[in-house]
Amino acid sequence: MEPAVTYHLKHVDKHTGARLGELVTPHGTFPTPMFMPVGTLASVKTMAPEELDEMGAGVILANTYHLWLRPGEDIVEQAGGLHKFMNWDKGILTDSGGFQVFSLAELRDIQEEGVHFKNHLDGSKMFLSPEKAIAIENALGPDIMMSFDECPPFFESYDYVAKSVARTSRWAERGLKAHKNPDWQALFGIVQGAGFKDLRQQSARDLVSLDFPGYSIGGLSVGESKEEMNHVLEFTTLLLPEHKPRYLMGVGSPDALIDGAMRGIDMFDCVLPTRIARNGTTMTSNGRVVIKNAKYARDFTPLDPNCNCYTCRNYTRAYIRHLIHTDEAFGIRLTSYHNLYFLLHLMQQVREAIANDQLLDFREAFFEQYGYNKPDAKSF
Amino acid sequence: MEPAVTYHLKHVDKHTGARLGELVTPHGTFPTPMFMPVGTLASVKTMAPEELDEMGAGVILANTYHLWLRPGEDIVEQAGGLHKFMNWDKGILTDSGGFQVFSLAELRDIQEEGVHFKNHLDGSKMFLSPEKAIAIENALGPDIMMSFDECPPFFESYDYVAKSVARTSRWAERGLKAHKNPDWQALFGIVQGAGFKDLRQQSARDLVSLDFPGYSIGGLSVGESKEEMNHVLEFTTLLLPEHKPRYLMGVGSPDALIDGAMRGIDMFDCVLPTRIARNGTTMTSNGRVVIKNAKYARDFTPLDPNCNCYTCRNYTRAYIRHLIHTDEAFGIRLTSYHNLYFLLHLMQQVREAIANDQLLDFREAFFEQYGYNKPDAKSF
Repeated sequence: MEPAVTYHLKHVDKHTGARLGELVTPHGTFPTPMFMPVGTLASVKTMAPEELDEMGAGVILANTYHLWLRPGEDIVEQAGGLHKFMNWDKGILTDSGGFQVFSLAELRDIQEEGVHFKNHLDGSKMFLSPEKAIAIENALGPDIMMSFDECPPFFESYDYVAKSVARTSRWAERGLKAHKNPDWQALFGIVQGAGFKDLRQQSARDLVSLDFPGYSIGGLSVGESKEEMNHVLEFTTLLLPEHKPRYLMGVGSPDALIDGAMRGIDMFDCVLPTRIARNGTTMTSNGRVVIKNAKYARDFTPLDPNCNCYTCRNYTRAYIRHLIHTDEAFGIRLTSYHNLYFLLHLMQQVREAIANDQLLDFREAFFEQYGYNKPDAKSF
Repeated sequence: MEPAVTYHLKHVDKHTGARLGELVTPHGTFPTPMFMPVGTLASVKTMAPEELDEMGAGVILANTYHLWLRPGEDIVEQAGGLHKFMNWDKGILTDSGGFQVFSLAELRDIQEEGVHFKNHLDGSKMFLSPEKAIAIENALGPDIMMSFDECPPFFESYDYVAKSVARTSRWAERGLKAHKNPDWQALFGIVQGAGFKDLRQQSARDLVSLDFPGYSIGGLSVGESKEEMNHVLEFTTLLLPEHKPRYLMGVGSPDALIDGAMRGIDMFDCVLPTRIARNGTTMTSNGRVVIKNAKYARDFTPLDPNCNCYTCRNYTRAYIRHLIHTDEAFGIRLTSYHNLYFLLHLMQQVREAIANDQLLDFREAFFEQYGYNKPDAKSF
C-alpha cells in the first residue's frame, strides 16, 4: 500500500545536510523545509484560513489533547473531520496529545498501558493510551498524525530515559496497529532519547524498523541550549531514512529553523510566532521589534521595511503600536499575520538557498542582520 | 462655498417618511439610510478595513474622546489623518467626545466655557470645550464631525434640559466658528431636548439657523422606551431641512433602524453588533442566536441560513460555538463579521423597500420573522 503522504527529495545542499524536497499529502503538496503554523484548537489564533493560504502555509497543526477536551473528537468527526470543521483544505498535522498530558495535566500516572491524569480544565480524571490517542486522531482526520509518546525532560537520568524510550517504542508499535486509516492518514513515529546518543540511536532503530511514513524528533526545545539541540540533531537525522520526512517538534525561532534545516530537518512547528504576537513582540529582518513600546508611537514606517506581508504593506508601526497599546484585537491580527509570514518567508529563503547550495552564506547574512551575532543575543 | 458633504434625496416612501438618498463625501458616496460600524479607537473591533469594504460599509465612526486620550490626535494628524492612520479610504465620521465625557468620565463640572473632568483611564484632569473638541476633530481629519454638545439624561427636569439645550446651541455656534476645514470636513449640529417637544423644536430651530451641512439627533437610545424614541423622532425630523442628512446617534437594534428610517433618518451608528458579537450573541433573519450556547455544539448548519456573508458561507454553528466557547479570537471575528453584515444588509433591504414604496410591508414581514411580534420580545 502506498503511504498516505510521500516525501520527494529534490536536492541536498552541498555544504550542509539541508534537504530541499516536497511532501505530497491528501490535501495538497508543500515544499520543504517548511514551518507549520499551530492551530491548537482548530484555529491559528486570530487568523482566517484564507490568510494562512495567502501567506503560503501549506500545512498547519492542530492539537489532539485540546480538541479531545473541547469540542470533543466526536463532534469534529461528525462535522466531517478537521478540514471541514475549520474550513481548511490544505494539509493538517496533529500531535498525539502526549506532550500536553506531560506538560499541562496534573497528577499523571504513567503505566505501560497508558497515562492516567487530571485534565487542566476541570480536573476530571482521564486516561490516554496509544490506542486512545490514535482513535482520537483517526476521528479528527488530519493528513499526518503523531504516535503517542512520552516526552521526558532533557536532563532526566539515563536510566529513566532508557526506560521511557523503550516504552515509547512499544507505544509506537501499539499505535501503528490501532491506526485505522493508513491509506489516507500518515502516522509518524517520534524519536526520543533526550541528549543521550545511544538512546536516540535505539529509539530511531526501533521506529525505523516499524517503517513509519515519517519521523518526528521530540524532546528538544524543552530547556536545553541551542548547542545541545543542534548536537542531538546532528547525529539523530543521520539515523533516519533519506526518503522519509523528518519533523522537529516545537521549534520556531529563526536561528533554530535555519540550524535545523542545515541538519536535515524538513518540517517545524511552534506557537512562538502567534504567542509573542499577542504580547506585541514581532520578528523582523532586522531582529526583534517589541512594537508595543512607546518609542514606536510616532514611527510611521512599516513594521519591517523589507517585508511584503499584508501588515507591512498597509500599516505603520505607530498604528500597530496604538492597537496593541489599547488592546484592540486587530493589532494582534496584524502582528500574528506578520510573524507567521516572517517564518514562512524565512523558510522560502532557506529553500532557495539550499537550491543554490548557499545555505551557509544565507545563514551568515541572516544571523548578522537579525542580530544573532551580537553579545547576549536573544533567540527571537 | 460648497459644503464638504452633500445629501441627495432620491425618493420618499409613499406610506412613511422614509428617505432613499445618498451622501457624497470627500471619501466616496454611500447610499442612505445607512448603518455605520463603530471603530472607537480607529479600528472596528476585530475587523480589517478590507472586510468592512467587502460587506458594504461606506462610512465608519471613530471616537474623538478615546483617540484624544490614545494615541493622541497629534499622532493621528502626523500620520496624515485617520484615513491614512487606519488604512481606510472611505468615509469616516467622528463624534465630538461629549457623550463619552458625560458617560465615562468622573467628577465632571459643566461650565459655559466647557467641561472639566477626570478621564476614565488614569483620572487625570482634562478640559473639553467646543473649540477644543473641534480642534481635535480637525486634527483627526474625518469627513464628518460632530458639534460638542451636552447629552442630558432622557428623564432630566424640563428646566435643566431647557438650559442644557440653550448651552448646546451656543456651543454649536462656537464650534462652527472654530472649525478650520469646512471645505473638506462637514460639521453636523446635534439636536437635543430629551423628550420635550418644544425644547427639541428650539434646539432644531437654533441649529438650522446656523446652516449646518447635516444634523444629528442626540439624547435618544439612552434608557427611554422605543415608543418614546419613535415619538421624539416623529416630530424632530420634521423640523430639519429636507436637503440635509439626518443622523440618529447610538441606535443599532434592527427594529430601531427600520423605525428610524420610517421617520426620515438617513444615518445610524451603534457598537451593538460588535459588542454582542464578543459575547457570542448574533442577529439572524430568524432572530437572536446566542451561539455560545451548548445546544449549538452539534449544529452543522450556518449561523443564518438566509445570510450570504463570509461567516455563513464558510462556517457552521458548531465551529463558531466551539471557538467562542474556547475564547478563540477567530470566533469573535466570525460573529462580528456576521453581525455587521446583518445590519448593513438590513439597511440595503430597507433601501430597496423604500424605492418600491414597500417599507411598511417589509417592516411587518421582518418583525414577524425576527420575533419582534412575540410577547416579551427583546430588542435584538
